[in-house]
Amino acid sequence: MEDSTSLNNLLTQFAELPGAKVLVHGGGRSATKIAASLGIESQMVGGRRITDAQMLQVVTMVYGGLVNKNIVAGLQARGVNALGLTGADMDVVRSHKRPLKKVMMDDGTEQLVDFGFVGDVDKANGEMLCKIIAEGVVPVMTPLTHDGSGNILNTNADTIASKIACALAPFYDVTLTFCFEKKGVLRYPEDEDSVIPVITEQDFADYKKSGVISGGMIPKMENAFDAIHQGVQKVVITRSDNINGEEGTTIKQF
Amino acid sequence: MEDSTSLNNLLTQFAELPGAKVLVHGGGRSATKIAASLGIESQMVGGRRITDAQMLQVVTMVYGGLVNKNIVAGLQARGVNALGLTGADMDVVRSHKRPLKKVMMDDGTEQLVDFGFVGDVDKANGEMLCKIIAEGVVPVMTPLTHDGSGNILNTNADTIASKIACALAPFYDVTLTFCFEKKGVLRYPEDEDSVIPVITEQDFADYKKSGVISGGMIPKMENAFDAIHQGVQKVVITRSDNINGEEGTTIKQF
Repeated sequence: MEDSTSLNNLLTQFAELPGAKVLVHGGGRSATKIAASLGIESQMVGGRRITDAQMLQVVTMVYGGLVNKNIVAGLQARGVNALGLTGADMDVVRSHKRPLKKVMMDDGTEQLVDFGFVGDVDKANGEMLCKIIAEGVVPVMTPLTHDGSGNILNTNADTIASKIACALAPFYDVTLTFCFEKKGVLRYPEDEDSVIPVITEQDFADYKKSGVISGGMIPKMENAFDAIHQGVQKVVITRSDNINGEEGTTIKQF
Repeated sequence: MEDSTSLNNLLTQFAELPGAKVLVHGGGRSATKIAASLGIESQMVGGRRITDAQMLQVVTMVYGGLVNKNIVAGLQARGVNALGLTGADMDVVRSHKRPLKKVMMDDGTEQLVDFGFVGDVDKANGEMLCKIIAEGVVPVMTPLTHDGSGNILNTNADTIASKIACALAPFYDVTLTFCFEKKGVLRYPEDEDSVIPVITEQDFADYKKSGVISGGMIPKMENAFDAIHQGVQKVVITRSDNINGEEGTTIKQF
């Protein structure tokens, strides 16, 4: 989402998607860049950002302001009546501050990590989102939530996407599409054309064992199966230039 | 709004206001501070910010993200179902880029000024705001608008407040309250207790002639009378710790 040509392509594809829709975006690269310009170093553990008070200000600005509002204005220009939302807006996603968490470090040891102002989601408000969607409005979710006591919390975008898909599942037939930099889940990481078309829960267990699926793809897949278990009809993992779903990996329970 | 004690007081007072309500905020001091940390100098002409491409990024981050989302989370903590909005969100305020404009400089000469990415408001969407308000939601407007072609534009907060008050006037009995650092419009600038309780259009003309009203108060008063002419019932100018309206200056047509 952070290169302007790919962003424009994605917004155009997204605008063309028929039916009710919700966009969930990230913004990590922009946050790292702006933080660096402000003399704030980005600290990552296991691919996740440590969010101290200063970094919380940065992500609140960058995710909630810079990235979100440019996407909203870009969608409006494409005839999509977009509405940018953090979890605090209309109380759509509530979370609690993550307690200290055991994390497997690169060297194989486990450590207790304080992620700072990071939120683990408690509830996504499907009813409120449905009311908005019924007005023809397209929610554009930023990866920020709130704790109900006045604190904004930094929250993983994949998790927000999954929770919102689940919260909408009682009201809609929901397809959840995760976008990343590859065409889909690859059988051979160096072969862009080795996309695995379908992965069931049994396949996932096998691929984990054999090492085909590893690293950052594991939590993405876990989010995907969580969503399937909670009523989401279909989960697709694909590249951002393919959100209309002709390629990519489809996740199925059986 | 930018000192945390006054902000908390204001949010508490605002939460207690009965009836449907909308909050419009600024954020100029924070924008100037963050811009300075990024090595970007704030250029002002006649009290208005020049918004080049870099400064547009800053105000989009600071107004739309940092300031807006902290107010929204603060109101949620006070039981107010707040929703942060730029003009781009749900297309609530549309504007066009300000053309070169003649401005009276401090030395008394007139100059053609390019304000950059600054928006002059074309339309506030009262119908959409009413739908949201009818759901018990409280809009929190940030001083950013859009041109419908994908561009965010920096827009004066007093003007947005006035345009929104007018757009809501067909649906509600609207009181528009402008907050600033004094208790009201003062007869003697050095005497905080010399608040003028009521100013009519004729009074305004007289006070301008005699110099009682000058400088930045003139556009504020003009916004106030514009609102009265377009159906707003009452305009009050007061301090942010007095928004429930016991003190301050009331603007009346006759």
